[in-house]
Amino acid sequence: MNRIKCTISYDGTHFSGYQVQPNGRTVQQEFEKALSKLHKDEVIRIIASGRTDAGVHAKGQVIHFDTWLNIPIKNWPRALNAVLPDDIRVIDSEEVAQEFHARYNVREKEYRYFILNKREHDVFTRNYTCHVIKQLDVEAMIRACESMKGEHDFTSFCAANSGVKGDKIRTIYHATCYQEGNRIVFIVKGNGFLYNMVRILAGTLIEIGKHDRPITDIKRILDAKNRGDAGRTAPAQGLFLWDVVYNN
Amino acid sequence: MNRIKCTISYDGTHFSGYQVQPNGRTVQQEFEKALSKLHKDEVIRIIASGRTDAGVHAKGQVIHFDTWLNIPIKNWPRALNAVLPDDIRVIDSEEVAQEFHARYNVREKEYRYFILNKREHDVFTRNYTCHVIKQLDVEAMIRACESMKGEHDFTSFCAANSGVKGDKIRTIYHATCYQEGNRIVFIVKGNGFLYNMVRILAGTLIEIGKHDRPITDIKRILDAKNRGDAGRTAPAQGLFLWDVVYNN
Repeated sequence: MNRIKCTISYDGTHFSGYQVQPNGRTVQQEFEKALSKLHKDEVIRIIASGRTDAGVHAKGQVIHFDTWLNIPIKNWPRALNAVLPDDIRVIDSEEVAQEFHARYNVREKEYRYFILNKREHDVFTRNYTCHVIKQLDVEAMIRACESMKGEHDFTSFCAANSGVKGDKIRTIYHATCYQEGNRIVFIVKGNGFLYNMVRILAGTLIEIGKHDRPITDIKRILDAKNRGDAGRTAPAQGLFLWDVVYNN
Repeated sequence: MNRIKCTISYDGTHFSGYQVQPNGRTVQQEFEKALSKLHKDEVIRIIASGRTDAGVHAKGQVIHFDTWLNIPIKNWPRALNAVLPDDIRVIDSEEVAQEFHARYNVREKEYRYFILNKREHDVFTRNYTCHVIKQLDVEAMIRACESMKGEHDFTSFCAANSGVKGDKIRTIYHATCYQEGNRIVFIVKGNGFLYNMVRILAGTLIEIGKHDRPITDIKRILDAKNRGDAGRTAPAQGLFLWDVVYNN
């Protein structure tokens, strides 16, 4: 058996999220269906770096699976793309050791959150950005990002109904915003993220950008360890799982 | 009665084209439905600069309609966007004289055709570009564009089943291509376009870019006045009605 690691991108618009569930179309289900077509209808399970919610996109999600097929490694993307629906694409593949695990071996994940800051929404990016009409103070948002960095208990930035077991301490390596025309992008990298964490961080940043909250609020919210102190969960369609980095 | 001119953009992906038809969702139908909501269910007809086909997008389509409503002109986009589906947006509006006609007064139209030239398609632009795997010779395409310019009989670049009445002589003011990373854009401006004309021009250019046809072929095809001599009709999703310019 060969273990194959694939970097995949998907448009989350028409998915009920990543993980297989009884109702609704999911990325995992569609991917396993495609693998099954290549494996004489055998069930082949995949493991991802983590789930993404309904409507959330991935530019660089990573998955692995085991196969008895002897396809040259460089041909895997084309073979899979030929049987995948057109809102999932394999962009890279490599053969990895049996010890490689797409979830357990993650060292760092990067998410990006896209905001369109103008009066009217744009028809071509409406599924890929969060529309904010009021002009945002990007400088305030950039300064607020500073307080996210480092190791913190992110209880306040975790969905109250998350069912997350274990501690809620995570380390943020990098957090910033940049503006490009009408588009504002929030970039965050860390060793792990709680349920809805990036969307609650983004929602809180948007409120800071609107001057509905002070720049210093991120630190106060972290200290409160209470979901109710943070801002609203920003909508799913602005969020992209951008990159996953592995140990060695 | 006031005559209102609106510049609108729409994502053609989920439309069976612009014009009202018995089956399928159309831009005209959705727009007239929205106007009706603002006019106590009265039927308000709109006139566009021209139709667009199923899957074709518009960045700057222009329409006009007459209304007895006294909404300040700068508030029309917001009023209409509040009742329009999210794949149609009004981006500008102005009050015009009763003599203004969105179809008859067109001086120039601009179309752009977007090609993604790389091995694998991109999930986020798949509905807005035509995917071409083989590397295209953009220089050859730019040179081929030169032969399109000026006044010609475009019979060879008109769908055979078009039912176009009158002559097929049109004037192209501007035609070129440019490359931006993996994306190649074909820009064409003219006084009018026949049915499928831009898509057949784009399809022929792609064949020239693949070296399946010589650069000089555009001139030969024009002279032949025969649809069979031109290339394939490029897919709808790469095409955008970009801009419409009016007399005075």
